[in-house]
Amino acid sequence: MSPRCKVAIVMGKSDEGGEPHRQQSMVVVPLEIPGVIVQRSTSVFGYDDSGHGGHAEIVYRNVRVPRENLLGELHGGFAVAQARLGPGRIHHAMRLIGMAERAFELMCQRSLVRFPFGRAIAEQGVFRDWVADARIRIEQVRLLVLKTAWLMDTVGNRGAATEISAIKVAAPAMATWVIDHAIQVHGGMGFSQDTPLAEMYEQARMLRIADGPDEVHKMALARREINRFRVAPTT
Amino acid sequence: MSPRCKVAIVMGKSDEGGEPHRQQSMVVVPLEIPGVIVQRSTSVFGYDDSGHGGHAEIVYRNVRVPRENLLGELHGGFAVAQARLGPGRIHHAMRLIGMAERAFELMCQRSLVRFPFGRAIAEQGVFRDWVADARIRIEQVRLLVLKTAWLMDTVGNRGAATEISAIKVAAPAMATWVIDHAIQVHGGMGFSQDTPLAEMYEQARMLRIADGPDEVHKMALARREINRFRVAPTT
Amino acid sequence: MSPRCKVAIVMGKSDEGGEPHRQQSMVVVPLEIPGVIVQRSTSVFGYDDSGHGGHAEIVYRNVRVPRENLLGELHGGFAVAQARLGPGRIHHAMRLIGMAERAFELMCQRSLVRFPFGRAIAEQGVFRDWVADARIRIEQVRLLVLKTAWLMDTVGNRGAATEISAIKVAAPAMATWVIDHAIQVHGGMGFSQDTPLAEMYEQARMLRIADGPDEVHKMALARREINRFRVAPTT
Amino acid sequence: MSPRCKVAIVMGKSDEGGEPHRQQSMVVVPLEIPGVIVQRSTSVFGYDDSGHGGHAEIVYRNVRVPRENLLGELHGGFAVAQARLGPGRIHHAMRLIGMAERAFELMCQRSLVRFPFGRAIAEQGVFRDWVADARIRIEQVRLLVLKTAWLMDTVGNRGAATEISAIKVAAPAMATWVIDHAIQVHGGMGFSQDTPLAEMYEQARMLRIADGPDEVHKMALARREINRFRVAPTT
Repeated sequence: MSPRCKVAIVMGKSDEGGEPHRQQSMVVVPLEIPGVIVQRSTSVFGYDDSGHGGHAEIVYRNVRVPRENLLGELHGGFAVAQARLGPGRIHHAMRLIGMAERAFELMCQRSLVRFPFGRAIAEQGVFRDWVADARIRIEQVRLLVLKTAWLMDTVGNRGAATEISAIKVAAPAMATWVIDHAIQVHGGMGFSQDTPLAEMYEQARMLRIADGPDEVHKMALARREINRFRVAPTT
Repeated sequence: MSPRCKVAIVMGKSDEGGEPHRQQSMVVVPLEIPGVIVQRSTSVFGYDDSGHGGHAEIVYRNVRVPRENLLGELHGGFAVAQARLGPGRIHHAMRLIGMAERAFELMCQRSLVRFPFGRAIAEQGVFRDWVADARIRIEQVRLLVLKTAWLMDTVGNRGAATEISAIKVAAPAMATWVIDHAIQVHGGMGFSQDTPLAEMYEQARMLRIADGPDEVHKMALARREINRFRVAPTT
Repeated sequence: MSPRCKVAIVMGKSDEGGEPHRQQSMVVVPLEIPGVIVQRSTSVFGYDDSGHGGHAEIVYRNVRVPRENLLGELHGGFAVAQARLGPGRIHHAMRLIGMAERAFELMCQRSLVRFPFGRAIAEQGVFRDWVADARIRIEQVRLLVLKTAWLMDTVGNRGAATEISAIKVAAPAMATWVIDHAIQVHGGMGFSQDTPLAEMYEQARMLRIADGPDEVHKMALARREINRFRVAPTT
Repeated sequence: MSPRCKVAIVMGKSDEGGEPHRQQSMVVVPLEIPGVIVQRSTSVFGYDDSGHGGHAEIVYRNVRVPRENLLGELHGGFAVAQARLGPGRIHHAMRLIGMAERAFELMCQRSLVRFPFGRAIAEQGVFRDWVADARIRIEQVRLLVLKTAWLMDTVGNRGAATEISAIKVAAPAMATWVIDHAIQVHGGMGFSQDTPLAEMYEQARMLRIADGPDEVHKMALARREINRFRVAPTT
């Protein structure tokens, strides 16, 4: 929905009878040509995901573009998407670690200046339990993301498939946990517009669905693990 | 923030030297009188909580109201608040059960009409696991709310204190769990404006803070439980 | 393995070609007749489950019993088993509530007499959080068991099928949670023979498997729930 | 309790008026000298922890040993204990990863050869969900242990204090989760003596208490984290 956005990348079926991974193509579609109708903006838990303008619902009515607008090969859209998704997923995981660290900071800072019932939150056992859990969770995901990045650099996206799936699942789960507790420490302010916590929370929650829901990544990861135990690997 | 809202109920210190529970008074303040300044609306996770118009930040600058605007007794504001909070909390718990049942319905209905990778979500083991967990959780909270209502009717708010705290904690936790999974079943639609799930999710999450955060209710409940084991109860 | 045990109830296939639920029969087999060989005792997490003597592995070699040893109808063993399982499951759930309450008592009592780092466990926030969670969990399961018992009395085992599955899953999960935390409060003593906690913990854990593992009960419960949303119920 | 055990290392107060960390001494006590009475063996969840013979309750009645039996400095027992605990804790974490990997293998192997209700466990969604979770959990803890080992080698036990506490908490929690699910996949066999799972489960659970309970490590870790946010660090 950003006014700076001038083109859409559209992925659609170009060969319904092809191999499952060779049916789609990607084309670049300028938004101002006839037939492209931006219907509306869609929301993300009450936000418009405005960091990049927000997600539009678009109708393409008899839209035609020249052949040179093809991205990559004809019927090769799936491969283009995959090439982008590995890096995209680790990029999200890195941002989630940043969000979690920011929430952790806000939580600790507030704990030192709020005194419900006369004692600083920082001195309360339940809060300290959260701090320890948060640090243990963040650190584990950080190391898994670093290992994944190293594998992507050394053996490529395909060799890092298990780890990419792992961080795709682990990073949003960790970040929502940390941000959720930071919100709790802030009380009503935590879900208002006065801290970045509420919007970060939605971003993190959304990332359990965007680029493939947790469940799809876990099934793919599990299939590879189980296959290691088959005498003659199948499936 | 609703235009229908004409008065504010203001609770403030009227006797700083009194007993802790006898320091506050409540007064009714018409919004149109001089000195009442509605500064801004505050958001709840990106929503304006518009069911009742939303929460305002209000400044009262040298505002005066006649004595007959006093609610209840002078310095008796705490008692007025308490009288309202027990019923308020069970009311929230009941609404949360309704939200959870609505989310459960939406989740099951969608599971029958979506076929990711060629098989209905309704036939997938992980989804069925969620359905079972959701039903078990909803039913337990429903029974606890019913027991609480029965206690409030028969022995009063004070006699039902443990159960009121229990449902204040258990109902939002259950509802956020159920709604969260219903969102996951809906994919991107789950956090958009096209279902009520995203806004219900925020309502349920907010209710872990509104009317007293989980942690305060759990400490109160635990203190009563532990005291039962003291030879001579104290604290 | 109890020396008081004189007979075994054996369920076996008597009609391999029958309907799935009409293939088994149950017979009473005296342990002292020829061919009955008690091979060994099996353990339950290091215990011998000695409340009733423990579980034996038994080989039946060409054992024959007279027709009057048949329990119920010929090929009706499944029905006999089902008739027993509903009451058996609620019986286990009731015992699990008792175990949880006993663990809760032990946990609270010890919290008042132990002062690690100079402050009673009873005064520590994390412990109080556990106490509140434990009470909330126990009370919810208790109410669900009471409702189940009422349904069994009024509409029978079949009418209470959803609730029987629900308590079969919820009661062991609750009890293991409570007992686990009571163990933690006791430190090394908690897993020794000096309290009943360690053995109760294993009993509770075992009951997530005995009489049907959690996963089977959850699938059955979920299938019924999902079927309510089918236009024409199937499966 | 091992018959090979000939000496006990006894830590006791040698200077009640000293600094808190300079009050204890450690001495080597031969078990056969007069006054050393081995009262009994203590159990660990029904096992005798027999890998090393098991834990004894010992009474020392007017036992005297020569000065050269002192371990380290007089009143320096705390330092001796601390010097051993860092390496001891990472050693336990490493063994827990081994246990978790062994349980993971057993779980996957069994999933391929068991067909409840006609379909291999390996093909069932809930099981695959566990496999994915297990792998993601194991890998995160492994990396955290490796980082901890690297810190201990490069900056010493003190510099690795946060990470040592983190793995002390994270490794048993991960291992109990993985082993618990492997048990569930094995049904009744899972808690019997026919697999190593039941005993590993108790070992892992015990390690949430041995060498300092989770709660103590989390409080220490949290204090250090919170102190980073104090303007002038204290406590």
